[in-house]
Amino acid sequence: MNAIRIGLIGTGYMGKAHAIAFQTAAAVFPLSRQIICEMVADITPEQAESQAKLLGFHRSTGDWHDIINDPDIDVVDICAPNHLHKEMALAAIAAGKHVYSEKPLALNAQDAMEMTLAAEQAGIKTLVGFNYTKNPTIQLAKEIIERGEIGEVVHFRGTFNEDYLADANTPFSWRLKRQFSGSGTLGDMGSHIINMAHYLVAPITQVCADLQTVHNTRPIADKTGEVGMVENDDQVHMMIRFANGAIGTLESSRIAWGRKNGLWLEVTGTKGTLVYDQERLSELQLYTATDASNRQGFRRILTGPEHPDYRHFCVSAGHGLGYNDMKAVEIRDLVEGIAQDAPLWPDFRAACAVNAVCDAVELSHKESRWVSINND
Amino acid sequence: MNAIRIGLIGTGYMGKAHAIAFQTAAAVFPLSRQIICEMVADITPEQAESQAKLLGFHRSTGDWHDIINDPDIDVVDICAPNHLHKEMALAAIAAGKHVYSEKPLALNAQDAMEMTLAAEQAGIKTLVGFNYTKNPTIQLAKEIIERGEIGEVVHFRGTFNEDYLADANTPFSWRLKRQFSGSGTLGDMGSHIINMAHYLVAPITQVCADLQTVHNTRPIADKTGEVGMVENDDQVHMMIRFANGAIGTLESSRIAWGRKNGLWLEVTGTKGTLVYDQERLSELQLYTATDASNRQGFRRILTGPEHPDYRHFCVSAGHGLGYNDMKAVEIRDLVEGIAQDAPLWPDFRAACAVNAVCDAVELSHKESRWVSINND
Amino acid sequence: MNAIRIGLIGTGYMGKAHAIAFQTAAAVFPLSRQIICEMVADITPEQAESQAKLLGFHRSTGDWHDIINDPDIDVVDICAPNHLHKEMALAAIAAGKHVYSEKPLALNAQDAMEMTLAAEQAGIKTLVGFNYTKNPTIQLAKEIIERGEIGEVVHFRGTFNEDYLADANTPFSWRLKRQFSGSGTLGDMGSHIINMAHYLVAPITQVCADLQTVHNTRPIADKTGEVGMVENDDQVHMMIRFANGAIGTLESSRIAWGRKNGLWLEVTGTKGTLVYDQERLSELQLYTATDASNRQGFRRILTGPEHPDYRHFCVSAGHGLGYNDMKAVEIRDLVEGIAQDAPLWPDFRAACAVNAVCDAVELSHKESRWVSINND
Amino acid sequence: MNAIRIGLIGTGYMGKAHAIAFQTAAAVFPLSRQIICEMVADITPEQAESQAKLLGFHRSTGDWHDIINDPDIDVVDICAPNHLHKEMALAAIAAGKHVYSEKPLALNAQDAMEMTLAAEQAGIKTLVGFNYTKNPTIQLAKEIIERGEIGEVVHFRGTFNEDYLADANTPFSWRLKRQFSGSGTLGDMGSHIINMAHYLVAPITQVCADLQTVHNTRPIADKTGEVGMVENDDQVHMMIRFANGAIGTLESSRIAWGRKNGLWLEVTGTKGTLVYDQERLSELQLYTATDASNRQGFRRILTGPEHPDYRHFCVSAGHGLGYNDMKAVEIRDLVEGIAQDAPLWPDFRAACAVNAVCDAVELSHKESRWVSINND
Repeated sequence: MNAIRIGLIGTGYMGKAHAIAFQTAAAVFPLSRQIICEMVADITPEQAESQAKLLGFHRSTGDWHDIINDPDIDVVDICAPNHLHKEMALAAIAAGKHVYSEKPLALNAQDAMEMTLAAEQAGIKTLVGFNYTKNPTIQLAKEIIERGEIGEVVHFRGTFNEDYLADANTPFSWRLKRQFSGSGTLGDMGSHIINMAHYLVAPITQVCADLQTVHNTRPIADKTGEVGMVENDDQVHMMIRFANGAIGTLESSRIAWGRKNGLWLEVTGTKGTLVYDQERLSELQLYTATDASNRQGFRRILTGPEHPDYRHFCVSAGHGLGYNDMKAVEIRDLVEGIAQDAPLWPDFRAACAVNAVCDAVELSHKESRWVSINND
Repeated sequence: MNAIRIGLIGTGYMGKAHAIAFQTAAAVFPLSRQIICEMVADITPEQAESQAKLLGFHRSTGDWHDIINDPDIDVVDICAPNHLHKEMALAAIAAGKHVYSEKPLALNAQDAMEMTLAAEQAGIKTLVGFNYTKNPTIQLAKEIIERGEIGEVVHFRGTFNEDYLADANTPFSWRLKRQFSGSGTLGDMGSHIINMAHYLVAPITQVCADLQTVHNTRPIADKTGEVGMVENDDQVHMMIRFANGAIGTLESSRIAWGRKNGLWLEVTGTKGTLVYDQERLSELQLYTATDASNRQGFRRILTGPEHPDYRHFCVSAGHGLGYNDMKAVEIRDLVEGIAQDAPLWPDFRAACAVNAVCDAVELSHKESRWVSINND
Repeated sequence: MNAIRIGLIGTGYMGKAHAIAFQTAAAVFPLSRQIICEMVADITPEQAESQAKLLGFHRSTGDWHDIINDPDIDVVDICAPNHLHKEMALAAIAAGKHVYSEKPLALNAQDAMEMTLAAEQAGIKTLVGFNYTKNPTIQLAKEIIERGEIGEVVHFRGTFNEDYLADANTPFSWRLKRQFSGSGTLGDMGSHIINMAHYLVAPITQVCADLQTVHNTRPIADKTGEVGMVENDDQVHMMIRFANGAIGTLESSRIAWGRKNGLWLEVTGTKGTLVYDQERLSELQLYTATDASNRQGFRRILTGPEHPDYRHFCVSAGHGLGYNDMKAVEIRDLVEGIAQDAPLWPDFRAACAVNAVCDAVELSHKESRWVSINND
Repeated sequence: MNAIRIGLIGTGYMGKAHAIAFQTAAAVFPLSRQIICEMVADITPEQAESQAKLLGFHRSTGDWHDIINDPDIDVVDICAPNHLHKEMALAAIAAGKHVYSEKPLALNAQDAMEMTLAAEQAGIKTLVGFNYTKNPTIQLAKEIIERGEIGEVVHFRGTFNEDYLADANTPFSWRLKRQFSGSGTLGDMGSHIINMAHYLVAPITQVCADLQTVHNTRPIADKTGEVGMVENDDQVHMMIRFANGAIGTLESSRIAWGRKNGLWLEVTGTKGTLVYDQERLSELQLYTATDASNRQGFRRILTGPEHPDYRHFCVSAGHGLGYNDMKAVEIRDLVEGIAQDAPLWPDFRAACAVNAVCDAVELSHKESRWVSINND
């Protein structure tokens, strides 16, 4: 078999991002397998057909089960709303297909664990779309930490703030209802910064959190005077403790005016500090105490061909990758993981650990106490 | 009486900063009273004499009680180590003198309240050296918040991080012992960011905190092989809730490599956001949602003569104030408060509120729970 | 005809960038025509074949004339070294094919004009790869200028600095010889900033310049002790005057340590100022004198879906485009220009104007005087 | 003699800056001599008296000759408008007094040379107020260059842009007339960046320049409908060549919207690059090619006690100096130069070299050619 055939469920924001990234990955990387954008599923056959055309897929369907049941599909790519992930993933696993799912993996850790165990028993490959860890700049950060260049990590501060709901008049949507989305900013953006902390530091073992809904109702679009009740968090922050003894804070908000892609992190070690701001995603700030004391300062490293994966995009340093390029790296991982039968990260188990932290955050807030996370 | 005569106790780091600021304040501002740098007290008569000469004071003494007892001293300026503040302030108050004290006011809120009540009963003026709120840039931030330009405040994130103890081999000092310094980074730097939150937002009413000592021993200078036990915190962070319903996080560290004056704050409101980084102390970042949607962005306002107090230093915008200039504004407040018999801020009561938060932080950490602060 | 068939000549740095961008453009934009990556020409049939496979082209050849002579090729895409552009473009034009050429268009303005006239007489479409003007951020800058938001432009400062030859031991290459490359940093990078000035302000009418080769010889790779003579400029700067009365300076260097993609520009008008730094290619700094005087400051606008073309890449603001994305916009222009038979910019004539400025720069330096550019 | 007595002529912008700096210098530095602010001269006796009081001087006069003739004055400090510098300085020199003058030293190089020769023959000390070279950050830059840490300097780019006349309706003033001010932005701000280039690199030997007045008339304050003719330059830029073979560009503008203290410089060497932005005057950006190639980046050094002179202001790094602090360093130099009978820089001769470049700039523009500067 020389090709990997993709069946994409959902053609919204992330569906298009995946479609772009499949093309870019094929052009950028020398992949071991050809990617074939085979079939798209959407709400109706008509919408699926027009989206397939736009996104460059061969076939389309108004019923996502067609993708599950199609013998020519190798990978089920789930870009549907959060509450559908579980059913779709379990069906795909049962059909023996690899699953590439958007985050958060599930509405809670219990569901995520059920999905994880099913996938592991079936022996299929899973990958969850926490694409920001795929950024060459973040891979560089991990390399610096692992080589001990900033010593032992003692503190991690991370935020992921945006302002897409900062305007109190932004209309109500499915994302604001528990049954469709689960938690609010916690699951949507907080999950990214939790996963990032897991990637760069260690498993989170304890959490104490505060959550708040600031705008409790929002107008319903096209229905003058009607409002919907917001059921999940606009802003969340937490104190965390890691398995390796480091401590830290995480924060996420969807009402933080001015922040557009505010995934920001600072990792402090016993010999130096790293800072990353995703609004400048090809820069890493590094301070090392090993420089001469009167020449120390945060240095701005522009990602380039000497850093992980960058050279495939461009052979000149500092020319800048974009949002879609991080997704293309993720897809390279997916394709090579399948082709080489190698482990993928973050797989369902890693994503389940993120769900476990999210659950602990909500419990901590509800009971006003520290909550431990079982990482076994 | 046309002059205010200063008696300075302590000639270390802050003692010299005060001495510089007395001169600068007199040259910069049209003060209602002449400042006379009258007497310095230090550990020994010899050290006091040489420091008096260096710092431009007329007289000196090896016994700080001489300042208390001198009828020509109007203001007792306390720059001695933290554990001595209480005794000195109470003596000064008893002698009917105004008290200008460095922060933290006391080792705990109980002592701070005793000092506050004594001062209020005596009817003297008090001012505590939380100088960073005196920065014209911070005064501008307060003006923007009070005028509603960023709407209702919903979140505050503040840090005050430095790296002066980041090197594990930096020698032991009195600051690391409870009896002399009280808490560690919490009282030393955390108190500044707590006071800043009080200044810009509202009283803090609840706190949940984590504290950590990372380097538990440190070498004793000039005694090879001997180490001192570190008794207080290297890093602290907390979740806070304000009286007005806003929430936030505060953080302080004295082991944060690369941070030199890392008082950093972000205030998010329902209509905009403010960001301030004290390593660039003459800049304020302002995002307002009232700009045209396709022209919105954080704007970097350079403090200038149209902003509070700046014009006295320079009539051109963006020429930059320095660390000592903030102290000069503080001294202008001191002098005018006394001359006009007007309220001063932050007085002992305001500083006591900071001590109360610090105490709640330590209790919260000890008992792993949220702690309420009584602001009555 | 529903497809546009591409014949790519050259598979180096820019050849791969084009190949990536063809795929990305098709996935990102709703194009009027399908792009078919038909044939690749390279030095040998073997190299062409392996590159075609890597870059996703159907066919390959070791003789670029095969592309010219192939009736199924619609666009000849020239990514070969500079001195070959003329012969290839004239052959393509003679064969009635559209030409998409990398910059600089030719080694001098005379050649560029010959190519321009041939293309115009043949009625084919031409586009030259000054891709940086295609960045949504730069399109936004142009929109702001054209709407008068910064008033009348009075000054333009532009640099394009990199450090790819800053190390004196970087080996000799064809780029350093006049017969293959023409001028040095002037044609390679200076041409970009000249084109940018033309795009954002007005035609340049007068120039006075200084050029310098700092490293006169360089080692020849794999030949110990042998050196090659550098025949063109390492750094160039010039004073310019525009047709609209504005003045400015331009600068380019290939030995500017630390600059990786240092295309930096500042446009000053009678009502405001724009600043752009290509190392942060999704940010535009805008200062407008129409804000309240005590709230003025440079605002950092993060490019987003409300700005030109961005929404096709991502519907969230500030998520960042990359280097290859600018090329994808360029290819969208190419495809739509051909499909709609609409004007393209920068076409050969616009690129010829850049060559004319480059020639004037070299003459100005040689004769130590101001030189006028004939823009008729 | 244990004191240095100052006679200050002029109490505008710079007069007050000097008055502040005398006080600050005395408090900050352990000076060899006491500074006595003895006498102030202003336009009228009344204004002089009130200013003396405000600025902390003992005596006052309405006739500056009283300062020259007073036997108790050691230093004549000239803060009067530019066209008066010559007469005042020559009178002070004739009276055997040291002269501390604001910049530009004179309206042209011929006058400046006459003043220089008079001072040198009289054997008195001179210092000219190009205070920006006194910034510890700039002293650090010089140290880095002199130690060869960025190799041989090959390029210098400097700007000094502000927007104090960017508004076309800002009223007419004496600064806009040749007889009082000489050139416009060239002498006012351009002189600073020329002096900085001399300080950091080498003497400038050749210049080719362009000058422009953008707003040719300005309203006269309080006279509705009347305008004054602007006689000097709003913006200037030049290409320069240094005695050591390096080349560069300098630029200055008083109509550059958004720039408040836009003295910005970039020094490129064969091994690294330095960048300084005076709107962040306590930061220096350093890039060195000697770092590991995959860890290179501009590092932001915050000035601190390990750098020249900073420790006298504060013993903590990164706490930031202000505009007036640079002037205080200048005054320390003045006092110690007199006390130790040591050379001062920039003295009249150094300032005369700046005037010579300014004259060459105007000649270059007038005759549209490169002009050499005689540095003998």
